[in-house]
Amino acid sequence: MRIIIDAMGGDNAPGAIVAGAVRAARELDTELVLVGRGAEILQALEKQGIATLPKGMEVANAEDVVDMHDDPATVVRKRRDSSMVVGLRMLAEEKGDAFISAGSTGALLSAATLIVKRIPGIRRAAMAPVLPTAAGRCVLIDCGANAECTPEFLLQFACMGAFYAKRSLGMETPRVGLLNIGAEDTKGTELQREAHRLLQQLSERGTIRFIGNVEARDVPLGAADVVVADGFSGNILLKTMEGTAKFMSAQLKSIFMRNLLTKLSALFCRSGVQKLRRMMDYREVGGTPFLGITKPIIKAHGSSDELAIYNAVRQAADAVRGDLAAAIGENLEQITVPKELEHVE
Amino acid sequence: MRIIIDAMGGDNAPGAIVAGAVRAARELDTELVLVGRGAEILQALEKQGIATLPKGMEVANAEDVVDMHDDPATVVRKRRDSSMVVGLRMLAEEKGDAFISAGSTGALLSAATLIVKRIPGIRRAAMAPVLPTAAGRCVLIDCGANAECTPEFLLQFACMGAFYAKRSLGMETPRVGLLNIGAEDTKGTELQREAHRLLQQLSERGTIRFIGNVEARDVPLGAADVVVADGFSGNILLKTMEGTAKFMSAQLKSIFMRNLLTKLSALFCRSGVQKLRRMMDYREVGGTPFLGITKPIIKAHGSSDELAIYNAVRQAADAVRGDLAAAIGENLEQITVPKELEHVE
Repeated sequence: MRIIIDAMGGDNAPGAIVAGAVRAARELDTELVLVGRGAEILQALEKQGIATLPKGMEVANAEDVVDMHDDPATVVRKRRDSSMVVGLRMLAEEKGDAFISAGSTGALLSAATLIVKRIPGIRRAAMAPVLPTAAGRCVLIDCGANAECTPEFLLQFACMGAFYAKRSLGMETPRVGLLNIGAEDTKGTELQREAHRLLQQLSERGTIRFIGNVEARDVPLGAADVVVADGFSGNILLKTMEGTAKFMSAQLKSIFMRNLLTKLSALFCRSGVQKLRRMMDYREVGGTPFLGITKPIIKAHGSSDELAIYNAVRQAADAVRGDLAAAIGENLEQITVPKELEHVE
Repeated sequence: MRIIIDAMGGDNAPGAIVAGAVRAARELDTELVLVGRGAEILQALEKQGIATLPKGMEVANAEDVVDMHDDPATVVRKRRDSSMVVGLRMLAEEKGDAFISAGSTGALLSAATLIVKRIPGIRRAAMAPVLPTAAGRCVLIDCGANAECTPEFLLQFACMGAFYAKRSLGMETPRVGLLNIGAEDTKGTELQREAHRLLQQLSERGTIRFIGNVEARDVPLGAADVVVADGFSGNILLKTMEGTAKFMSAQLKSIFMRNLLTKLSALFCRSGVQKLRRMMDYREVGGTPFLGITKPIIKAHGSSDELAIYNAVRQAADAVRGDLAAAIGENLEQITVPKELEHVE
């Protein structure tokens, strides 16, 4: 297995990216290709005390870098020599099995769709981060790639999320829930009602295990293993969890700072509180996979450090082994809605 | 001022409702009317050790009770003698200035709209709970009454939220933000883009202070005083905050339970942690006002206890003093969009 990494994407590139890749090359059984400005990558390696490339690691030169201000739609054309575009082209040309970038989300999504293409039959690629829950974790799909969705998109997200959870995350028979504002199947908008009907059908055929609507309140409490949402409400869910956790962590800090005894308590509870804070920081879990592209693409967070990149490589390897494209291919008929039956576009 | 209370609504009725009302009658400068089964109300009063009605408190008889399983649309017709419908009729007939119920949300919304009517020019009533934030608190409008919205609805929600925050909650010049998935005004769906344009116009006229899009992550961190959303995404925001807080509280509990020293810490931090837990339980703040009805209506939580009802009475009194209907009347022209300019319906 060979994983291509954009060495120039993100706030800490190329240093943290190279460091994470070095660790992955040593500890994981994968070959790695670092794409970016050769000189800078070698310099970063030297800083790690590495004079020659570790076994299984290569560098592919790319002189340009995608900027956070670049218009995602024009990146493929205007930044053709960037590490992101060169890396994605290598992926499309089968010079690797997966691609990781900590660069601009919009640019990566747009370039991945144009260069690596969607899995045949899949209408939209979606972002599927893994969130912490009381039951362990859950996959949220979509969380922002598609603000506007049709019921068929949601049907396909559900399938991709369930297959990913099963084949790459090792969940046995993931419980798939539809994010909604009530439990009854009449709740929500036309989008949710129609998606509910399609998901029910798919569940009756045994393709996925649909457990019905799931309310946002119950997502952190572990009510579903895969939460299906349009990109708008999925984003609201994801970001509210993040903001609430941040808010509560700050409140907790001030509780511990109150007096001598509470400061002592902070010391006693330190490891637990740190673990909780890390758990609530979903970026720590690794990157966000884009599901629906022919090959695995992992968006690592912009502020990724060495550990985050290492985790993203592990995640990419799991995604390669899961082979979502094959699973989708086998079930394509069941997750495509004839155009004339589509209600919303 | 005279506040009408549905004595039979909610899980703890009539006991908790009557107890909260008694406390309000004693401590607040308002007259109260308890609507419901007279015999049961008097029995509940007796349990409080009260033989005769306190000064300023009355009982209005209503033999029926709205059930949680009643279809909201038929409550006015099928439950005409219920405490909820009788109370709302009294409000419409000016026998009181506000109405409080801990009964079914859907039934209350539907019956309030039919009996007490919307403020002329207002297209939809909205639910506007007050949420805890790092900056103190914020009003979220809507959070579930209207799953599908037009840009004009959001414009009106913004105005109602801002006027309510200013006139009833005492916020000086509330910062109004539009819930969206990014800061740029091109973000979101057509609904958000068009609402952004309308809100910008209203802000330029000085009617409200619009600060642009606000991301869900920044809501708990206090980025806005009034958060405007369609009922679907508002509900996702509200419920995710609730679920995340619940999840983190449980995690915190297990951190404190780990060993002898952490158990000791729990003791030291107890008052702070309890305060935090109370703060995150938005029900404690009081009820959720329905904005857009000609007179103040407060939905108290179904599990309201004595304190929650007492707080709801205080909140109802603040709402009466704020006189939202008058404020809307003065600004009606600015918050109505000519039908031919409405993009979505």
